[in-house]
Amino acid sequence: MSVLVVGSVALDTVETPAGRVTEAVGGSATYFSLAASLYGPVRLVAVVGDDFPQRGLTMLRERRVDLRGLEIVPGRTFRWVGRYGDDLNSAETLETQLNVFAQFDPKIPADFRDTPVLFLANIDPELQLRVVKEIRGARFTAMDTMNFWIASKRDVVTEVMSSVDVVLVNEAELRQYAQNRNLTAAARQVLDLGPRAVVVKKGEYGCAVYAQDGYFAVPAYPSEQVCDPTGAGDSFAGAFIGSLANSPDWSWRAIRRAVLHGSVVASFTIESFSVDRVVALQPEEVDRRLRELVSFTQIEPEWEKGLIDAHQYTAQARR
Amino acid sequence: MSVLVVGSVALDTVETPAGRVTEAVGGSATYFSLAASLYGPVRLVAVVGDDFPQRGLTMLRERRVDLRGLEIVPGRTFRWVGRYGDDLNSAETLETQLNVFAQFDPKIPADFRDTPVLFLANIDPELQLRVVKEIRGARFTAMDTMNFWIASKRDVVTEVMSSVDVVLVNEAELRQYAQNRNLTAAARQVLDLGPRAVVVKKGEYGCAVYAQDGYFAVPAYPSEQVCDPTGAGDSFAGAFIGSLANSPDWSWRAIRRAVLHGSVVASFTIESFSVDRVVALQPEEVDRRLRELVSFTQIEPEWEKGLIDAHQYTAQARR
Repeated sequence: MSVLVVGSVALDTVETPAGRVTEAVGGSATYFSLAASLYGPVRLVAVVGDDFPQRGLTMLRERRVDLRGLEIVPGRTFRWVGRYGDDLNSAETLETQLNVFAQFDPKIPADFRDTPVLFLANIDPELQLRVVKEIRGARFTAMDTMNFWIASKRDVVTEVMSSVDVVLVNEAELRQYAQNRNLTAAARQVLDLGPRAVVVKKGEYGCAVYAQDGYFAVPAYPSEQVCDPTGAGDSFAGAFIGSLANSPDWSWRAIRRAVLHGSVVASFTIESFSVDRVVALQPEEVDRRLRELVSFTQIEPEWEKGLIDAHQYTAQARR
Repeated sequence: MSVLVVGSVALDTVETPAGRVTEAVGGSATYFSLAASLYGPVRLVAVVGDDFPQRGLTMLRERRVDLRGLEIVPGRTFRWVGRYGDDLNSAETLETQLNVFAQFDPKIPADFRDTPVLFLANIDPELQLRVVKEIRGARFTAMDTMNFWIASKRDVVTEVMSSVDVVLVNEAELRQYAQNRNLTAAARQVLDLGPRAVVVKKGEYGCAVYAQDGYFAVPAYPSEQVCDPTGAGDSFAGAFIGSLANSPDWSWRAIRRAVLHGSVVASFTIESFSVDRVVALQPEEVDRRLRELVSFTQIEPEWEKGLIDAHQYTAQARR
């Protein structure tokens, strides 16, 4: 099942305790597409300037990402300059040059309009709304957003949240949106708007899904070599949506499995600067690490009996 | 199997966004004993002043905690004054009055010396070392510590870590001890000292165990009503050790199960000020929440097959 993503393609300059990279290929739609393309066909809608390096396009084409919705316009590509300190959970933005992205007006090829699965990466929520209406064939829709839009266009963000099946958001943004520090209470506010699930990304602490169907949480894969967290959230989203698009159904079980795929692919992304690791990623590596993550978080089914036995003492003592 | 705990019994004055409590019963050994007594007999070694309220002693006796090692000396009981802001993960200490605790010299009744399971709560590591040597019968030993001892007596803390089976520590303290922000790398440093497992407590983000046998992580039970986090770590330790002491073996499976018990009991502790919730806690409530935590974190065993299917696309495309 095809996935359509609308988002940014950018050039990132990033400094982390592990080093520095200059004008490397980045952007939410890029990370998303590279991750999602491990699971099925991806259609990308974005804009770049005529300075965007050919190798960026080649890389996406080699992963069979359909680039007919990628507009190349005269001018400079969107650039982001950021820094991570010792706390790799949050980036400090040093500079944002929107360039051609400032006038981004998603041009959706006619035969993209019936794409069954749609991901609205972090762009102006007014554009997100327009795209939701245009992709009439979409049967499953998810979105991301960021602090800037929550602060400046909260009502529009709310409207987008009300029109999608899944909201992906990081914990700081969820708290900001709900104006409530308790994530359970904050997630309930968003769920009450109508989406089926709210996926809360917590960086090194993993991820939690608050859903109409229940609650599910998974710790992050424990990485000893975190190089550059840029793109972790977007590649999480790519693997999450890709896994769902590739699933026989969109059941609660499929959603939970998708969360594990998202966690694992994100754990690879952060092992290198830019998209280097996710570009090279093989499905076998994902499967291997998924099995590891399962062994790190799941207990043998027989254990439940042991739970009850554990309280023999108190029960006896009270008799 | 009996558990012996050496630690503090205190009077806490605590302010949180949910309210304030003055000179309420607290202390690491108190929280530990109340939690561990859900699983089996507990022996407490600590010191209080002659101002310690009778109801504190009654409360412990009603939970069948053996108080023959609790010394009551002339003077004032240890007092702690602290505050939690919106971030309930870390307390700000406003005042510490050691009082009679400053001269704490654990007096261990002769027939406590063969207690099979020993927990060294957060006290001066020199006392911890002395107790380890005195409890010759101990077949399983665990410890906690705090930032103050890591900063002032790091070498002695290291010596205690080298003599126990399990080190329990919160993430900030582990980073401080190892001088490494990456928890995996930091935990390995401690494991290299000899303990079988390092249990890292992360507050609302749950807990992880780095062990010679493997790695296991569990998210926290999602609480919507967090009242007062004081004692969460000590009641985690109490349920963790209690569950192990009550287990037919100390296998890797038993350790992982104990982590779930610790998480659940801690999630109750924080729902009220002081020990109110943990004192009233019934084993049936623990079992019920354990089953919930399982449903929040565990996936049906059949899912593993689905993992592999998820990559049909890429595998086919490469053929």
